Amino acid sequence: MATTDYEAVPAVERDDAAPHLGTVVMKFGGTSVADPDKLKHVAGRLVAAREGGSRVVAVLSAMGSTTDELLDLARQVSRRPAPRELDMLISVGERISCALAAMAIHDLGHEAISLTGSQAGIVTDTVHGKAKIVDVRARRIHEALDQDRIVLVAGFQGVSADSFDVTTLGRGGSDTTAVALAAALGAQVCEVYTDVEGVYSADPRLVPNARKLDVLTYEEMLEMASSGARVMATRSIEVARSHNVRLHVRSTFNDAEGTWIREEDGTMLEKALISGVVHQREETVYRVTGANASRLFGKLADASVNVDTIVQTGAEIVFSAPVEDRPDATRALDELGVSWSARDDLGKVSLVGAGMKSHPGVAAKTFATLEAAGIDAPVVSTSPIKIACHVPSADVDRAVQALHEAFELG
Amino acid sequence: MATTDYEAVPAVERDDAAPHLGTVVMKFGGTSVADPDKLKHVAGRLVAAREGGSRVVAVLSAMGSTTDELLDLARQVSRRPAPRELDMLISVGERISCALAAMAIHDLGHEAISLTGSQAGIVTDTVHGKAKIVDVRARRIHEALDQDRIVLVAGFQGVSADSFDVTTLGRGGSDTTAVALAAALGAQVCEVYTDVEGVYSADPRLVPNARKLDVLTYEEMLEMASSGARVMATRSIEVARSHNVRLHVRSTFNDAEGTWIREEDGTMLEKALISGVVHQREETVYRVTGANASRLFGKLADASVNVDTIVQTGAEIVFSAPVEDRPDATRALDELGVSWSARDDLGKVSLVGAGMKSHPGVAAKTFATLEAAGIDAPVVSTSPIKIACHVPSADVDRAVQALHEAFELG
Repeated sequence: MATTDYEAVPAVERDDAAPHLGTVVMKFGGTSVADPDKLKHVAGRLVAAREGGSRVVAVLSAMGSTTDELLDLARQVSRRPAPRELDMLISVGERISCALAAMAIHDLGHEAISLTGSQAGIVTDTVHGKAKIVDVRARRIHEALDQDRIVLVAGFQGVSADSFDVTTLGRGGSDTTAVALAAALGAQVCEVYTDVEGVYSADPRLVPNARKLDVLTYEEMLEMASSGARVMATRSIEVARSHNVRLHVRSTFNDAEGTWIREEDGTMLEKALISGVVHQREETVYRVTGANASRLFGKLADASVNVDTIVQTGAEIVFSAPVEDRPDATRALDELGVSWSARDDLGKVSLVGAGMKSHPGVAAKTFATLEAAGIDAPVVSTSPIKIACHVPSADVDRAVQALHEAFELG
Repeated sequence: MATTDYEAVPAVERDDAAPHLGTVVMKFGGTSVADPDKLKHVAGRLVAAREGGSRVVAVLSAMGSTTDELLDLARQVSRRPAPRELDMLISVGERISCALAAMAIHDLGHEAISLTGSQAGIVTDTVHGKAKIVDVRARRIHEALDQDRIVLVAGFQGVSADSFDVTTLGRGGSDTTAVALAAALGAQVCEVYTDVEGVYSADPRLVPNARKLDVLTYEEMLEMASSGARVMATRSIEVARSHNVRLHVRSTFNDAEGTWIREEDGTMLEKALISGVVHQREETVYRVTGANASRLFGKLADASVNVDTIVQTGAEIVFSAPVEDRPDATRALDELGVSWSARDDLGKVSLVGAGMKSHPGVAAKTFATLEAAGIDAPVVSTSPIKIACHVPSADVDRAVQALHEAFELG
């Protein structure tokens, strides 16, 4: 059977075997299901959605620190646990959450069924620990929905097409499970529940008058997620964009409208110039000379270094990557035999907004704002909808506040 | 495909698709894998067996109190958890043990693979919580053994043939998994590892000079297990007898020979008259009048009451059952509308020995011993290889000691 790579194919692939009207996929992260009381609360939300008339598919993460506790056990028995066995081990956390949620839903008088990634038809490649979804065979989900059940799917995991082994999807895996299911089921919306009310114009802990954003384009959300907004995994937003899955990021704890993420359309033409300011307090910035760019970034990709910004001027290539990737990056650069240096004292502030595409003055105003605040920006990179400035880590908070103020985002 | 009911068919069913020579199934219970250090010890034993030339299949239980902790979570979210979801939940414990053991074996330089009940081909009926094994489809186990791997199978669980749901096997489930696998693989032996060195002529905590028994017949072990010896689940011994699986009950913590359990043969003809004295400190004894026996015990079976001894004399039927089954038994008896009474102040002492079949004097000597000790035995029942006496709970210990002494079992 031909398979669809859900994480790569840029087309809407829908399973037309069953009616789609009114299906909603609801994803809850680990903090939303951290203990039995929180699980019961989530069960109540799922029942409310069902009673509202939707066909409900929920994707749950593992409870609180379950996965970390399992990883700790693994470290106690093995210096370097085999990836296949690690996946077998850590995939149990989401199953526990789903089975418990199904029980809690039964107690509320509704039918529910929990499904493992495998039972839910989440078919992946065999790259244990960071598997990619290649197909969703949703027969059991359709059957259960047709039987008027709330369906609970264990996030973050699947089954390998070749070997029928349990696989896990790596960082942001549950978000990706939810979006892939929403695409396969033709869901009306994929709701991502979190402990904040949506995506904000800046981190409210830094900027007290930060504003909740009503709507973002996929591109804006991608830029924001990859520049420091932690509300959804970048990878899952890419899948949503490829398959045109409407996302709604909202609070687990109240019914307020959150932030919608969808394709740009006529109603969004008048939207604000800038949507928000996102930041990362630290990132490692590398300067490399004497390297061939394609060999350099091929090597870094093989070493699983998550390269973020790349800026090239002349013979020097500058790129940034997460601080925790430094050991892998160091090994890769040394093996390449290039001349390089790195600094760990920079963070990053990014202005994101689809509106800036047609407003060339944004960059100038950004630089003027930072200059007025006495903040140096040694590395700058831009995309059509983003300006990212690396600034000293110590100045990140002030830079966010100054830009949020200057662009009147409050 | 026709299936074999592994727990009912009294015939040796072997899978002849692969070589059998030198396969050993090794079963470790929850106390043997209670923490990472104990798991590493078990990994060492499995590696030693592999290095000794055997093809090794291990069946592991959940670590220590894992299953109880999961059941506690279930109780916190639901007053009456659905059996399907309870199975999904509690089956994760054995998977954790197996994945961790596989990692520990890798660290010892050997290849290993953990398999869920489903991956190991343990096919069951759909009675969640007490499923019966109906088939063992051991293709993946054979493949892994052929690849020179130690195979770790999650005990206590399977997959339902109809619905592909996770099932659990109930009490003694991991023992049953191990014996069924040994039967399907044509293993040389099924080794049951425990925290004592084998089966004893009496509980060594009660009788300091109790002797470890070298060999028992299946029938003796069945009588002992159902009369209070807790070393193996009765049900798994029945499967072993049906499929002629040789059992070896031995210690997790040393290499001493334990107790072999196998078919009676010529070498056992001269075996001791009595093998051992087993006991239970409490059992509920019911007296029922005005009941039809087949209706009575049919009703009790439907109510999941584990009826042990049955004695009928005239219009009165006397039977015993575990103390914890009293609520179910009470409900069943009341629904039948029979006249009944029950007492909770009795325990049971049983003499077991294949040798007593041809020695009619055993009963007389038993009664004389109890009488000399001043112990009343209001209910007595016998089988060809057992004499069971219900005695006051307070006299159980003295009765065991007196009988062990009288029959010179030390």
